Order: sequence, then C-alpha cells, then structure tokens
Amino acid sequence: MPSAAEPGTLEYVPRVSQDQLDARRSEILAGARTCFARYGYEGATVRRLESETGLSRGAIFHHFRDKDSLFLAVAQEDAIAMAETVARNGLVQVMRDLLDRAAPGSGSGSSDSDVAGWLGTQLEVSRRLRTDPGFAKGWSERVEAIAAATRDRLRRQREAGVLRDDVDMDVLAQFLELAYDGMVLHLAMGRPRADLEKVLDLVEAAVRRR
Amino acid sequence: MPSAAEPGTLEYVPRVSQDQLDARRSEILAGARTCFARYGYEGATVRRLESETGLSRGAIFHHFRDKDSLFLAVAQEDAIAMAETVARNGLVQVMRDLLDRAAPGSGSGSSDSDVAGWLGTQLEVSRRLRTDPGFAKGWSERVEAIAAATRDRLRRQREAGVLRDDVDMDVLAQFLELAYDGMVLHLAMGRPRADLEKVLDLVEAAVRRR
Repeated sequence: MPSAAEPGTLEYVPRVSQDQLDARRSEILAGARTCFARYGYEGATVRRLESETGLSRGAIFHHFRDKDSLFLAVAQEDAIAMAETVARNGLVQVMRDLLDRAAPGSGSGSSDSDVAGWLGTQLEVSRRLRTDPGFAKGWSERVEAIAAATRDRLRRQREAGVLRDDVDMDVLAQFLELAYDGMVLHLAMGRPRADLEKVLDLVEAAVRRR
Repeated sequence: MPSAAEPGTLEYVPRVSQDQLDARRSEILAGARTCFARYGYEGATVRRLESETGLSRGAIFHHFRDKDSLFLAVAQEDAIAMAETVARNGLVQVMRDLLDRAAPGSGSGSSDSDVAGWLGTQLEVSRRLRTDPGFAKGWSERVEAIAAATRDRLRRQREAGVLRDDVDMDVLAQFLELAYDGMVLHLAMGRPRADLEKVLDLVEAAVRRR
C-alpha cells in the first residue's frame, strides 16, 4: 500500500502513518488467525502465512518478531475482544454469541472446522507452555485479562443483588469458565447444538439469586 | 508369551487361548493409548507404536486392521470404562475422578501433558469425521454409549425423586456433558485445579431437587 502523505508539501517526509501501520497490523492478524485455524500451529508455515495475508514475509515480520509473537498477538486480540464482551454482557452472553456463530446458516465466516482448528492450535501451544517461560507469560496474561473481566462483572452483579450470595464469587466465576470451556470443546468437536440454549439458561440460573 | 496349554494331554493342540489373545489385545491398547497421547494421531507412527507396545507391526496389525481401527478401539475401551462409571456413580463422579487423577502427586501414571495429548488427538480426529463416514460412525457410537449411560442414570435419579423436575431431563444431561467437556479442556490446557471441587458441588446441586 503506497504512503498517503502529500508529496506537494514542503517538509514532505515519505512515511507511513500510524493509522496505516495499525491497518496493516490488523490485516496481518486477520490472515494469521485464519491460517492458524486452518493448518494448526506447526502447519501455519511462513509460506502459508504469506499466502493468507497476501503480504511478504518481510512485511509480516516487520510487524511481528516471529511466529510465536504473531500467534500471541492473535490470541491477545481475541482476549481483548472477549474481555470487552464479558465486561459489558457477561460470560454467559459470550457463550450465547459463540453458539449463534456456530449455528448452521448463520452467515458468519467462521466454520465448525475453524473452531476446531483454533482450539487444536491453542492445545498445541498449551503443551509448549511447560518448556518456554516467556511464551507461558504472554499466554497467562491473556487468560488473566478474561478472568479479571469475569470477576469484575460478577462483583457488580453481586452489588446489584442479582447474584447468589451463598457461594464464593470466585467459585461462581470458575463455574462459568468451566461452562465456557465446555462450550468451546463441544463446538470444536463438531457436535450438534441440540438444546445448548436451554443449557445456558440453566448455567445462568445456577449463579443467580433464587 | 508361550502357550499355557498342557503338552502332556493326548489331544494337545498348540494354540493361543482366548485369554491370551485378550491379554495381548489389552497390551496393545495400553501402549497405543500412551503413544497417541504423547505424539498425537499423525505422530503415532507404526515405529512408535511398536516401540511403545514392545511388539512388532505384524503382531499389532494381526489384532487391528490399521491405525484408524486401533485408535477407535482405544476410544471404545475408554468409552466403555466411562459408561460403566457413569452408570454406577454418575457423570459428576467421573469428573471428580478426573480431577483426582490430575492432582499433583496423585501417583497416577497420567500426566497433564498426556491429557492434553489425548484431547489433541481426539480433536484431530473430530476434524476428519466430516470426510470419513465409516470413521464417523465408529466415533459417534462411542459418544452415544456414554450419552445413553448418563441418561439412564438421570432417569433412575428422577424416579428416586432426587432430580429437579422443572427442567427437561435431556437438558440436564447436556448440562452435565457441558461441564464434563469443560473439565477435560481445563485439565488439558494445564490450568490450575483451583476450586474445581467446589465448582463440581455447584454443578451437582444445579441438577438436584432444591
């Protein structure tokens, strides 16, 4: 993409604006996300990352140090989006959205197979965590951001008096996280949606004041 | 292993007894389970299967047609064991057992990494289900055996009056399955056990009559 700076100005310096850098970064992340989901972590070769993003390896690795950094940045972006939704609408709503996206004919770009691929990639990575402390740190920050948003939201719900008060709030948060993990795995395995909406009603009711 | 038949008897025929065949089959399944968990489905090469079982490829594939069959047999054996526990003690107990086995210093042979490996393998396989109907059939039978045991147990609990009766039994079963999937993924990701025992209390209470 050519620079959009004006060549006519006196102090013209041919440089790329921050907006352009951000846009390029987003492009790379979107392509990389698809690529990791489709081919797994090991299978997402530099050649495939080039093909999926439509950019050269030079352009890609100008923005991200290496494949690890790129993967963590994708995970980080997902975590931020998810933490925002959790803060606004709660983890149960995130599960409902996930279920809607997985509905046949939902018109969304993400397929069951991509959910499976992405989860497979995360699992592959989770096995590496034990041997690579730097990577483990980046990963745990991602998990913690979502955990913090979940607890913040529960705290506000407890203050509003809608949360049950006979169970420790952290246990309620872990219960919701367990249900979320279950939903992710269920969809990744390509199992039918069945009555999952009613199951989520049950999950929601289980943390509320009776 | 030599035949245990008695050479002294008149009608001695040197053959391998059914018990010996069964024992050999169990040996192969145990080695294959470890191998799939450690190296993933693709990574569990014939050479590695030989090394892990201590048997030749001839011996292994005398019992199982191919790697697919072997994998499905491992999954089938797991499913039978799990369905038995579910029928006897319920799916929540299966989750409690899983949690105990994952406890640090539990002295069990299965590590977090093996749980992750095994789940990774299952995911790999679930992605293949869409392209291989024969394989998909074997797989779905496995899932259905456990689902049937879960529903049988809930039916008996409802008859005994301990199950809540304001929610459809199949929704309760799916709720327990969601929690189970969540537990598997949680452990596979190597996350801390934290308060999962209390979370399971909450899961159990959510399906019971109040």
